[in-house]
Amino acid sequence: MVYVTRREVFSAAHVLYNAEWSDSRNAEVFDKCANPRGHGHNYVLEVTIAGEIDPSTGYVIDLKLLKSIIKEQIIAKVDHKHLNYDVDFLQNIIPTAENIAVAIWNELVHRIPSGTLYSVKVHETENNCAEYKG
Amino acid sequence: MVYVTRREVFSAAHVLYNAEWSDSRNAEVFDKCANPRGHGHNYVLEVTIAGEIDPSTGYVIDLKLLKSIIKEQIIAKVDHKHLNYDVDFLQNIIPTAENIAVAIWNELVHRIPSGTLYSVKVHETENNCAEYKG
Amino acid sequence: MVYVTRREVFSAAHVLYNAEWSDSRNAEVFDKCANPRGHGHNYVLEVTIAGEIDPSTGYVIDLKLLKSIIKEQIIAKVDHKHLNYDVDFLQNIIPTAENIAVAIWNELVHRIPSGTLYSVKVHETENNCAEYKG
Amino acid sequence: MVYVTRREVFSAAHVLYNAEWSDSRNAEVFDKCANPRGHGHNYVLEVTIAGEIDPSTGYVIDLKLLKSIIKEQIIAKVDHKHLNYDVDFLQNIIPTAENIAVAIWNELVHRIPSGTLYSVKVHETENNCAEYKG
Amino acid sequence: MVYVTRREVFSAAHVLYNAEWSDSRNAEVFDKCANPRGHGHNYVLEVTIAGEIDPSTGYVIDLKLLKSIIKEQIIAKVDHKHLNYDVDFLQNIIPTAENIAVAIWNELVHRIPSGTLYSVKVHETENNCAEYKG
Amino acid sequence: MVYVTRREVFSAAHVLYNAEWSDSRNAEVFDKCANPRGHGHNYVLEVTIAGEIDPSTGYVIDLKLLKSIIKEQIIAKVDHKHLNYDVDFLQNIIPTAENIAVAIWNELVHRIPSGTLYSVKVHETENNCAEYKG
Repeated sequence: MVYVTRREVFSAAHVLYNAEWSDSRNAEVFDKCANPRGHGHNYVLEVTIAGEIDPSTGYVIDLKLLKSIIKEQIIAKVDHKHLNYDVDFLQNIIPTAENIAVAIWNELVHRIPSGTLYSVKVHETENNCAEYKG
Repeated sequence: MVYVTRREVFSAAHVLYNAEWSDSRNAEVFDKCANPRGHGHNYVLEVTIAGEIDPSTGYVIDLKLLKSIIKEQIIAKVDHKHLNYDVDFLQNIIPTAENIAVAIWNELVHRIPSGTLYSVKVHETENNCAEYKG
Repeated sequence: MVYVTRREVFSAAHVLYNAEWSDSRNAEVFDKCANPRGHGHNYVLEVTIAGEIDPSTGYVIDLKLLKSIIKEQIIAKVDHKHLNYDVDFLQNIIPTAENIAVAIWNELVHRIPSGTLYSVKVHETENNCAEYKG
Repeated sequence: MVYVTRREVFSAAHVLYNAEWSDSRNAEVFDKCANPRGHGHNYVLEVTIAGEIDPSTGYVIDLKLLKSIIKEQIIAKVDHKHLNYDVDFLQNIIPTAENIAVAIWNELVHRIPSGTLYSVKVHETENNCAEYKG
Repeated sequence: MVYVTRREVFSAAHVLYNAEWSDSRNAEVFDKCANPRGHGHNYVLEVTIAGEIDPSTGYVIDLKLLKSIIKEQIIAKVDHKHLNYDVDFLQNIIPTAENIAVAIWNELVHRIPSGTLYSVKVHETENNCAEYKG
Repeated sequence: MVYVTRREVFSAAHVLYNAEWSDSRNAEVFDKCANPRGHGHNYVLEVTIAGEIDPSTGYVIDLKLLKSIIKEQIIAKVDHKHLNYDVDFLQNIIPTAENIAVAIWNELVHRIPSGTLYSVKVHETENNCAEYKG
């Protein structure tokens, strides 16, 4: 079993806000992340596939193919977007790094043609990240 | 003459939009950066001071002091904010990296107690940055 | 299960020295790391928590809380300190990256209010690190 | 159990080419990676050892020793080389990151004097990497 | 005057070899860089433009345009190539970082539509780089 | 004129302390940097040489030679050392990043065999650095 990882980046805005709570409760829990107009990040996304090496190519998965799947299914939908409003697969969830990682996993898991999706890791800043392994 | 640099980071949203133009003209010029809800970045700010070394401290400027000036005058106003709406010193300008660098320079230039402000550099992503030297 | 990681940095001095050995044995085993006055590093600490996402917040753990626990329990005690002399929780151990990781784990494991401490990783340089998972 | 990692870098050329295929099939599968003269990378190699801490040294393994093993067995053979032609332990395999990671594992696994080889990770670019755990 | 920089990366092979010298003289001067089959790098290219900010856009130069010029004129010609054989604008020069920086400058200087080319910087590894300012 | 830069790293301890001042004055000015036992950093040193390209080599300076000069004259004397006590060329100065940069300049300026020393830059942390250009 070999693990291959592809890294992509996207720049997006978000707000942390629970619509079932009052503004003051949101401000108390989410602090500056609850700023109504939003703030943003250069997100770093790492997608890891686990599988055996195909001896005819030396690949677990063709990373050009993995790159194009991530670009089409994820990056095209989130890059230069506001994650609370503009992204179909993030509707009705609070866009924390944790929830983004799980949502991206759910978008990708049935679209990986060979190998097995092993991990989706989302870095929000150089100090904070979340990883989901299914 | 010695140059000392302090690096700080902030996370903010922005939109590139010229209010004097039609939406289609904005979309044509600014492309995905014109997405109305905004997107965001982890901005990296580098502030460089030029001066002579004080022999009693070995400092051009006390970096603890420079850090606190940058934190109070800049980071407190831009971190976790939407740069088009929430920041007094960015009102009525298009918040490109170029304009942000110039605006931060103008905020800092009269508040550096020793040495001389030499450069303000703003990295928008790992691939794009702007620098202003007055 | 989602894994969230918080990164913090601290600058400290240390010496690798076994007090039960002669100076020459220490020099032989620890080489330049045994320099008596010490040397130092910008340590990078990564603390990973594993848990389920709280649907009301989207958080496994509030990273502001995790940050404040790490700052109070660890960073305040090790930053700008000499690890062989100044740190209560490192007394009587040789402050290798391995031992520092285990000691930080022991300081944190009972102070994580939700989720489970999963990993403590200590980078000594850009080339060397140690990780402990309990 | 503690995991210690040593990072080394090497600069090498390679071509992805399956000698049993036609040139056009190679170009179709490997695309620009099949350019006959080759291209190259600054590879980043991370070797992780798992073991218990020796209480007399605080080490899982002396990283100076691990460094010298990696330098002698791997870096001396691959740095500033063309991986398709110049490296004995890469003969007759397609030098993808996956195959390089497995081949380096096989070179190192019997030469680690204490602890257990846990992982070999090869970064080909800042966006692509492969990891093998035996 | 504001300075804006665009960063791009490319992966290429090269050999340092002076065709007017004997092989032994080449080996003596260029050492392991003279390995006949070549080695390679992930080159990092930084192109800096100096100019005044256009008040209607906030741009010194549209970085999307600068990116597309660099991609078409440089990256398409050098990425996944062998710099000694495959690149028209590097014919008959020894492809050191210095010479690559100058050659890229010469390719770009007449193609920058607004602003002025200020600097071309080529990083060969994380430790070595060369910069040319015309 | 082309500028070539070599990067090296070293790990060292230091204390900021002015021997002509009282301990309380030192603590007031240097704060946690005045901790008597010292703290430390992974310093990053960047040395830049300016010169014309030698057409027979494509080099401004052979970076292998520059590397060996830096290793012998600087790194061998400061790596894994306490900068206040162990380094001849730092005696009787307060080892701030500013003073270290100037001292390294003075060590190197007469030992560069071709080209001209242009800049010495010392990064103390990822957030603080000092540069001296003579």
